[in-house]
Amino acid sequence: MKLCVVTSNPNKAREIRSYFKDLIEVVHVCLDCPEQRHEDVGEIAKEKASYAFSQVKEPLIVDDTAFYIDALSGFPGPYAAYVFNKLGNEGILKLLEGEEDRKAHFETAIAYADSSGIRVFRGTISGTLVEPRGKKGFGYDPIFEYEGKTLAEFSVDEKSRISHRARALADLREWLQACRPGD
Amino acid sequence: MKLCVVTSNPNKAREIRSYFKDLIEVVHVCLDCPEQRHEDVGEIAKEKASYAFSQVKEPLIVDDTAFYIDALSGFPGPYAAYVFNKLGNEGILKLLEGEEDRKAHFETAIAYADSSGIRVFRGTISGTLVEPRGKKGFGYDPIFEYEGKTLAEFSVDEKSRISHRARALADLREWLQACRPGD
Repeated sequence: MKLCVVTSNPNKAREIRSYFKDLIEVVHVCLDCPEQRHEDVGEIAKEKASYAFSQVKEPLIVDDTAFYIDALSGFPGPYAAYVFNKLGNEGILKLLEGEEDRKAHFETAIAYADSSGIRVFRGTISGTLVEPRGKKGFGYDPIFEYEGKTLAEFSVDEKSRISHRARALADLREWLQACRPGD
Repeated sequence: MKLCVVTSNPNKAREIRSYFKDLIEVVHVCLDCPEQRHEDVGEIAKEKASYAFSQVKEPLIVDDTAFYIDALSGFPGPYAAYVFNKLGNEGILKLLEGEEDRKAHFETAIAYADSSGIRVFRGTISGTLVEPRGKKGFGYDPIFEYEGKTLAEFSVDEKSRISHRARALADLREWLQACRPGD
């Protein structure tokens, strides 16, 4: 069996291939899936997986990530990427000026699709928003502190053990090992 | 011929029925259409119209509205409704603190669908963001100034002549009068 990673981001595909290299062959499929406007990343990932499977017709995964800030009623939520491109971390910190509550969390949903249906794996990481620190990672990483360090201060290896995506991938891996479809 | 207005908002349907009352019978169809994540409201409205027509199979319209703030690279764009619910006008004004450029515009796209295809009508209104004034309207209306008044200071009748939605509806009306499908 092989697993298609449907994404327009080759770095993501490479990371996932490396993560599964002892278990399963991972193939990068570059396909733009229509994305629904939903509040829930699981629903967004499911819809993308359903569309992708109608095109690719092979076992595949797609993912989607949201970023929820408690003091902003969950904003930017599933629009994390759009909002980052428009406002950056500077805009987020401006919105939080005068707010005591600095809690936030990321959530990634990975949807696996094959001919028998779609299954969603989720991973979250909770932390605190701080002034930017660190040079690694991307997006909101420099302002997101987890156990004393921002995600941009963790090494890639460390981050790939603790991150929301890592947690969702670990659940997917466990499930593939237990019930590898087609075996 | 009748025209279905596909929306989950009965007020919107009532307004449109009243607008077209001398021209065409307007029927409210309450249907949730999946909404794509696009930057362009025309594309969003088209996708919604295509889905709605596959369900309703009668001539219909759907619409979508975006709100673009120049100093925020167009944010909140097509996520105007989501962002208003999360941040409100207070959040928008906070993001604009220290910004000299206060220009913004609304854009509405109305997509008309029938068995021969889909046609999009657009309307925009450009203005300036100010401290909230006025009690009418909703959403961003109190902070959006057009020719010296905020949209929340215009009467409903005045607003229904100048607004982004009014302009898109006027183009649709003109087209329906000129080329009424099915006549």
